[in-house]
Amino acid sequence: MKVLVVGANGQVGKHLVKKIQDTEGLQAKAMIRKEEQASYFKDLGAEPVVVDLEGTPDEITKATEGVDAVVFTAGSGPNTGPDKTMLIDLDGAVKTIEAAKSAGVKRYVMISSFDTTREAIQEAPSSFSPYVAAKHYADDWLRRTDLDYTIIHPGMLTNDEGTGQIEAAEKVERGEIPREDVASAILASLQQESTIGKEFQIVGGSKSVHDAVKDL
Amino acid sequence: MKVLVVGANGQVGKHLVKKIQDTEGLQAKAMIRKEEQASYFKDLGAEPVVVDLEGTPDEITKATEGVDAVVFTAGSGPNTGPDKTMLIDLDGAVKTIEAAKSAGVKRYVMISSFDTTREAIQEAPSSFSPYVAAKHYADDWLRRTDLDYTIIHPGMLTNDEGTGQIEAAEKVERGEIPREDVASAILASLQQESTIGKEFQIVGGSKSVHDAVKDL
Repeated sequence: MKVLVVGANGQVGKHLVKKIQDTEGLQAKAMIRKEEQASYFKDLGAEPVVVDLEGTPDEITKATEGVDAVVFTAGSGPNTGPDKTMLIDLDGAVKTIEAAKSAGVKRYVMISSFDTTREAIQEAPSSFSPYVAAKHYADDWLRRTDLDYTIIHPGMLTNDEGTGQIEAAEKVERGEIPREDVASAILASLQQESTIGKEFQIVGGSKSVHDAVKDL
Repeated sequence: MKVLVVGANGQVGKHLVKKIQDTEGLQAKAMIRKEEQASYFKDLGAEPVVVDLEGTPDEITKATEGVDAVVFTAGSGPNTGPDKTMLIDLDGAVKTIEAAKSAGVKRYVMISSFDTTREAIQEAPSSFSPYVAAKHYADDWLRRTDLDYTIIHPGMLTNDEGTGQIEAAEKVERGEIPREDVASAILASLQQESTIGKEFQIVGGSKSVHDAVKDL
């Protein structure tokens, strides 16, 4: 299975590409924005592809052709300018969803925000709510497709080393999770078809990632 | 017919409320953000209602109850911060669309941007493209409802006095249009049921607003 990792150069993305390359039968195509980011992924044996999420649908579709799954883990994040929130977190995500449809790729794993409900938009601090709204509409767009999607809602991301232990459910208590464990949960979702059509929150916990995802 | 004007305190909104109040059989409910904006609308005989578009769906639905049509002419505009582009031009618009549905109001007139296609997002200058994207997704949301909608795509807005003459068609040459004439085109759309389910661009032209809208 070949997996297009959108946002490969992000912190979750880098963990994910490495884990994919370390997994028998999986191969990563790393979508990156700049040529100079390519060598890191080549060294891992992954295939880099340089495409800007602000680029045209055609460019993004071309990068998507020939893969078996798309993982969207790009993110301007809440700390970039809100112009990028619109163009990357929402519009960029939508373009990759449409690219998956155009390229005939059924499997799509979206890394969302912890809570992207209407209530979460309303309740978020004003600096954060545009980001929540962007993720809300991107998730909504994906749900309305007939793609084999999974939407993962991670808690607060940390750079701690992964523990391999998480809690996963439709609703969990708000908490932290190392980016490396988010990458593991993505990998487990790609490997377990039972996650198709599901969405769930993840935080640090006490179950192995594999079991936590299996038990959803 | 009672018309909720969302963004009544904007420049198009002010013209529109006045024109509605000057029209036999029409009455405006002016949705405004601040109490101190109310007296202008009271003086026109319109009913002001103070609601923030960043407010809850319940607040917006409550303001929508009892009217016969909603006009969305709010707009952070391309010159406000992009955080407001997300929360007003997209999310605020969506909330008013959902409010119309909840309140059982079928008629909805959206004032969009001149070109909100995918191509327009891609081709816009980078400072403008978040705004185009916001309007793209708001228009898309509206099209997917079963509301009796009309989407008006005005050319470059000016503060010139209205001429009462416009050009209107699915596609017209890019050009300017006085805000007052946009308000007249909204009024004509509200009065002509033939505009339901249609969307069109408008610029300054040589037909009376009534005829231009009738001939769509």
